[in-house]
Amino acid sequence: MSENKRTEVDQLGEFGLIERITKDVEINHKSTVKGIGDDAAVIDCGDDYMVVSTDMLLEGIHFDLSFMPLQHLGYKAIAVNVSDIAAMNALPEQVTVSIAITNRFSVEAIDMIYQGIKAACKNYNVDLVGGDTTSSRSGLVISVSVTGRVAKDKIVYRSGAKKGDILCLSGDIGGAYMGLQVLLREKKVYESNPEMQPKLDDYEYIVGRQLRPEARTDVIHDLREIGIVPTSMIDVSDGVASEIMHICKASGVGAAIYEQKLPVDQRTFDACHEFKIPSVTPGLNGGEDYELLFTIDQEDFKKVEKNPNIYFIGYIDEAESGARMVTVGDQIVPISAQGFKHF
Amino acid sequence: MSENKRTEVDQLGEFGLIERITKDVEINHKSTVKGIGDDAAVIDCGDDYMVVSTDMLLEGIHFDLSFMPLQHLGYKAIAVNVSDIAAMNALPEQVTVSIAITNRFSVEAIDMIYQGIKAACKNYNVDLVGGDTTSSRSGLVISVSVTGRVAKDKIVYRSGAKKGDILCLSGDIGGAYMGLQVLLREKKVYESNPEMQPKLDDYEYIVGRQLRPEARTDVIHDLREIGIVPTSMIDVSDGVASEIMHICKASGVGAAIYEQKLPVDQRTFDACHEFKIPSVTPGLNGGEDYELLFTIDQEDFKKVEKNPNIYFIGYIDEAESGARMVTVGDQIVPISAQGFKHF
Repeated sequence: MSENKRTEVDQLGEFGLIERITKDVEINHKSTVKGIGDDAAVIDCGDDYMVVSTDMLLEGIHFDLSFMPLQHLGYKAIAVNVSDIAAMNALPEQVTVSIAITNRFSVEAIDMIYQGIKAACKNYNVDLVGGDTTSSRSGLVISVSVTGRVAKDKIVYRSGAKKGDILCLSGDIGGAYMGLQVLLREKKVYESNPEMQPKLDDYEYIVGRQLRPEARTDVIHDLREIGIVPTSMIDVSDGVASEIMHICKASGVGAAIYEQKLPVDQRTFDACHEFKIPSVTPGLNGGEDYELLFTIDQEDFKKVEKNPNIYFIGYIDEAESGARMVTVGDQIVPISAQGFKHF
Repeated sequence: MSENKRTEVDQLGEFGLIERITKDVEINHKSTVKGIGDDAAVIDCGDDYMVVSTDMLLEGIHFDLSFMPLQHLGYKAIAVNVSDIAAMNALPEQVTVSIAITNRFSVEAIDMIYQGIKAACKNYNVDLVGGDTTSSRSGLVISVSVTGRVAKDKIVYRSGAKKGDILCLSGDIGGAYMGLQVLLREKKVYESNPEMQPKLDDYEYIVGRQLRPEARTDVIHDLREIGIVPTSMIDVSDGVASEIMHICKASGVGAAIYEQKLPVDQRTFDACHEFKIPSVTPGLNGGEDYELLFTIDQEDFKKVEKNPNIYFIGYIDEAESGARMVTVGDQIVPISAQGFKHF
């Protein structure tokens, strides 16, 4: 009897599960311009498109309160959602926040979370317009939905990359992942000896990348100013390898990236050295950097080539070539989307 | 030092906490027509308003999987959100669903939840456009956000009720609360003796009201057809008493309701009798009926007076009169918002 069949989620994986859930989803409203399958859904809104995205963060899965300050958590919950809006070349306007708390959280603790939420709302110029407050039996849950807006001719999907386009990154990668490694190590030290104080001073940059990432709405403003509409875009939440695979799949193209061109900050590099991890690993497969990975037409290159904040990491070519990395030693290695496993 | 002060959430209550969180929230975008404080936020969207609402359901707080079938849970998660859209006189168009699961849920169990979600999407004509799938350390969490649309001159807030308006209900109340009492009783019987099968046949109606409530988008269609725009509206999620208080506060009015006019179904009444609960209690203070409570101008009364699906339960008057109930014995009792305590 099929009703007694039990398939574990692990057998499918997250992407397999999403594919299974979404395969028979129907779209009936003409106002639904784009449903599941990009960083945000796209809804017709008069002269503009409205983009909508949502993300849920759970204690013990997405964050560990033993090292995540509550203000930072609130800030990050907004930032990671705003990042999805930026990835559509849109700017955020409204946000709703639902929060579930156990009775171990005092009113003052909730205040701290909202201090972070409100600081992020101010920083990204987004209005807090609603939400839900409820109890939880175990652990803190924060679910955020965000709406953004973009002119119809400026919307950017994952699917527009084409042969010859240049692959760009808005900032350095791998820092958030290495920051997490440091935090986990210091937690372990502290747990085995509570007298020990965590040593984080030397790791301020990478720990900051993990605890207080920023959504790159500034890049969206910059691109608008210089008149560039990327041909495709995605935010780096699961690691560059995984995101490049998404762009290749959605656009029906291949891509080559140069190991040498991957922007890894010296401080991330130092931490890799200390942890004996090859720096290409967090760069490609570390997650949560929330930088923007995008492609531009070669024609647009001259407009950005001297921009110190944009890194050119490779190019787009035929689907048959697949996604691959050209190593420092000129070897060609296929890229596999390892994704980012939460701790 | 103030940083060491600890205030328990219970000291403030849910409404007090929301007030504290929201008191310094700023609105900066001119596209934000209405922020926190109604059933949904309102966003300018060209010729129409877009309304946005969100609700999070947690296992052990909002539902008990020992008696809540997974399909019904999925259906209800959509219905309760759609209900908030209907309460703005809008119709739903898009929905995002975030779900967090522990490893005790198989792929087949997740399929069942999505069967319910998709059935509700079909029934309410709403497109599933996005979401998030993640792990949970403990218990199932479903967070839904929904967008709806309404012509700008048809939007209805909680705040438009005025003296002389007639208070209306779209259906009978108290059933969902009594259904929950039956389910909790049968659960207890089952727990003390697993050989016993739950006896639910006699309670099909009220148990259905609890497990599979419907959002009353049909009423919104009806009102549009007969050309009525309510002066105020709210959905009954926390009980009629609490919702009337919201309308009175937002509109700056008082209200009188007649105990005798409160629509309580015979099957709800029978359950009240069996449980020795006065039927006015679940009617006023039971939650989760998801009927619409609204006010109409007296001028519009003739358009609906013969509508068998609308119950006229009282009227609006001056703020000084407060919210009160006229009992069957002609006594006048002030209404206090007891709200609905989740089990």
